[in-house]
Amino acid sequence: MNISDRHLTLLCDFYEMTMARGYFASGMKDKISYFDVFFRKVPDGGGYAIAAGLEQIIEYIKSIRFDDDDIEYLRSKNIFDEKFLDYLKTFRFTGDIYAVEEGTVIFPHEPILTVRAPAPEAQFVETFILLILNHQCLVATKASRIVRAADGRPVSEFGSRRAHGPDAAIYGARAAYIGGCASTACALSDKMFGVPAGGTMAHSWVQMFDTEYEAFVTYCKLYPKSPTLLVDTYNALGSGIPNAIKAFKECLTEEELKHTAIRLDSGDITYLTKKARKMLDAAGLTDCKIVVSNSLDEYIIRDILIQGAEVDAFGVGERMITSKSEPVFGCVYKMSAVEDENGKIIPKIKISENAAKITNPDFKALYRFYSKETGKAEADLITLHDEEIDESEPYELFDPDYIWKRKIMTDFTVKKLLVPIFINGECVYESPSVDKIKERCKEELASMWDEVLRFENPHNYYVDLSEKLWNEKHELLKRRYN
Amino acid sequence: MNISDRHLTLLCDFYEMTMARGYFASGMKDKISYFDVFFRKVPDGGGYAIAAGLEQIIEYIKSIRFDDDDIEYLRSKNIFDEKFLDYLKTFRFTGDIYAVEEGTVIFPHEPILTVRAPAPEAQFVETFILLILNHQCLVATKASRIVRAADGRPVSEFGSRRAHGPDAAIYGARAAYIGGCASTACALSDKMFGVPAGGTMAHSWVQMFDTEYEAFVTYCKLYPKSPTLLVDTYNALGSGIPNAIKAFKECLTEEELKHTAIRLDSGDITYLTKKARKMLDAAGLTDCKIVVSNSLDEYIIRDILIQGAEVDAFGVGERMITSKSEPVFGCVYKMSAVEDENGKIIPKIKISENAAKITNPDFKALYRFYSKETGKAEADLITLHDEEIDESEPYELFDPDYIWKRKIMTDFTVKKLLVPIFINGECVYESPSVDKIKERCKEELASMWDEVLRFENPHNYYVDLSEKLWNEKHELLKRRYN
Repeated sequence: MNISDRHLTLLCDFYEMTMARGYFASGMKDKISYFDVFFRKVPDGGGYAIAAGLEQIIEYIKSIRFDDDDIEYLRSKNIFDEKFLDYLKTFRFTGDIYAVEEGTVIFPHEPILTVRAPAPEAQFVETFILLILNHQCLVATKASRIVRAADGRPVSEFGSRRAHGPDAAIYGARAAYIGGCASTACALSDKMFGVPAGGTMAHSWVQMFDTEYEAFVTYCKLYPKSPTLLVDTYNALGSGIPNAIKAFKECLTEEELKHTAIRLDSGDITYLTKKARKMLDAAGLTDCKIVVSNSLDEYIIRDILIQGAEVDAFGVGERMITSKSEPVFGCVYKMSAVEDENGKIIPKIKISENAAKITNPDFKALYRFYSKETGKAEADLITLHDEEIDESEPYELFDPDYIWKRKIMTDFTVKKLLVPIFINGECVYESPSVDKIKERCKEELASMWDEVLRFENPHNYYVDLSEKLWNEKHELLKRRYN
Repeated sequence: MNISDRHLTLLCDFYEMTMARGYFASGMKDKISYFDVFFRKVPDGGGYAIAAGLEQIIEYIKSIRFDDDDIEYLRSKNIFDEKFLDYLKTFRFTGDIYAVEEGTVIFPHEPILTVRAPAPEAQFVETFILLILNHQCLVATKASRIVRAADGRPVSEFGSRRAHGPDAAIYGARAAYIGGCASTACALSDKMFGVPAGGTMAHSWVQMFDTEYEAFVTYCKLYPKSPTLLVDTYNALGSGIPNAIKAFKECLTEEELKHTAIRLDSGDITYLTKKARKMLDAAGLTDCKIVVSNSLDEYIIRDILIQGAEVDAFGVGERMITSKSEPVFGCVYKMSAVEDENGKIIPKIKISENAAKITNPDFKALYRFYSKETGKAEADLITLHDEEIDESEPYELFDPDYIWKRKIMTDFTVKKLLVPIFINGECVYESPSVDKIKERCKEELASMWDEVLRFENPHNYYVDLSEKLWNEKHELLKRRYN
């Protein structure tokens, strides 16, 4: 059941309703306003994030309807007048949404989604848009880090049981796949999105039989094509691996023996996998893979691989599905402009003593510059929405904080990252399959310099403002402070 | 829409299916097995946790059905035989579930939910039970800490936008309320569960008007009964608070002036609230409350209150809804026994080199001892399921690790904490309202010694084993290690 079928209209902060009614009652029902979604900081001190969740936002926006129960609920709060409640009966999203596509590599301060809509509508969709992006960008970004650490070995998402409720499991598995995971343990995500699900046995399977050996033999006979035996229920080196070897050899054909694996879910992985590899090889099971799980993340994976752990595949649970080391992705939703009665855009800015919290005003576009020579992404540029960039001319970029830092781009191509999703309330975008999104993410990462992708202390990717936007922003700042 | 209506049957780790089919194919379709849910460690180094989520587990268990699409999905994996798929068509949960009620204070290592069911069913429900408990216990426990830090001041849950997807927002608000929050910002949780939702304005409300003053006046006129004005859009001390004072005085009656508030969402809370209090008092608005938000948690709240911050109410977002400092609650699901063909219980144990990971075998009961004199909870005792405790006789408790540590309880009452939820697949329990659950939680906390409730380095509450259970466990350990 997707988001559209769940009637989540009222999944909003209550203040979206009090404000919506305020705009309605103050003659701003049709006042066009602009809001941007952006984030200020990549989790875990990383250098990049991955966009994910747009498909679920689209499903929500399409399904916004206040039904009789919703209206009755709001009426019961005794603060909304009947005129407003009447208006809600036919309330739909009628505006425009632009967004970066899922799987795109994104950076702090750039607009990743922009809403242009009548004030009550633009305000209303805030909570849902944020919660979807904050969740899926978080997990996709974490997954991307973990998959990079695994250095080519497949990573499977194992975290459903530690996820923050059903959606966190279902959509977390989706986001993890987009971020680079090869598979998931979550059957429902497979059924819903085609994220390939797999899994074989828990410790309880082994305990259910009189002996570990019997448990393994039974499993191999039932699933001879790719049995992965969990070998640490009692004692991995002392009984689990010897029993697995015996069971494999007894039950499987030569061909089947090529597709076996053992899994270790406890103990010291470096030590155990080195021992396990030797035992398997000595038994002639050189094709038998070693899968490990148990509280892994990018740091542990990097460390054990440096130490020479013999691992063929990883299962990662709680630390990926919750992004345990930093479980909050800080997308915010800020007003950037309104239109006057003639349709003229009036830019708005949110000031803060904290310079990083000052917003970029106006209706904007987002460009990514690629070097023609290397194919690598060199910088992103935020412009006013109608600025076009001529690829045949040199283009001067400058740092918006240290404006004397300048760079003239030549021999480049640009890509416009914000694409139309809704126009006048109509969805004009078709969400790709998760496989396509995953592929895009892979290509996007390949276009980034390694320096940007480092876990810690990465190179700060350039996100610049066009001269026009910079001037406008500083004009507004001057006015506000004078 | 509740869990029952969402057809979440396949929200399970894929291995639950491969194992279920294995049990089915190995003549264990009707083999009765027992599983316990317990956790090993309280998040954040705390001394206690709060049980939450049972209502959603009940909804799921009742609704388990493999429909044609589910069967077709499983068939497409090419590893399940038709006999098993046929069996799934009428698969229901037919077993028993015992659980501690929501709102109960719970401790590490004690069974908080026990499943007794035919092997495929008992195995199958693992993932969903864990993910619900791990989510809601996590947030309820975190909320309890934060509410305690607020020392009587109401705390509102503000985190929807940073939650891990829709369910994390909806059920997180429910759990936070159970844990002690006074309200939520999430309108849907109010509609679904009656968790009181509130909220007034965002910065965008202020930006939508030509001046801050106009924004405030408009709001006060629309919502004169309890306006909370957000005063930090531009400059809290310089414009926000003076404008709020002016707007309140201009728009509200004497009576209405008693129910006003301002909210600060940025800057140094201790400094700003002290200044704000003085400004409000000087203007005669001594009844005007000060609400603060912005990345709060129990530690910051404690610190600013020690510093004398003038705060009347808190709004807590991301750090509560994600339990940011420790976003994983580690409930596990472990087999504790099976029955033989005569219905005799055969206890099972999971061994580990790590003593804390060794499970407690057998079908068990859980008692809480209260001192009659103080009314306080003194210890929990895990027993075999059929042990009764005679309150009229002294009872000797002992530490299961250091068995020379003994204490004779006299003048006590006991409460059985695991209550029947499902018997033979029939639900025999009616979930209380969230208000009732919240009340229970409050009473439960009142029965705990302060030493147990401390944030850091709390007193370890005693969770002991009965002599019978201890003997059985050590008999099994001996056998396994000989």
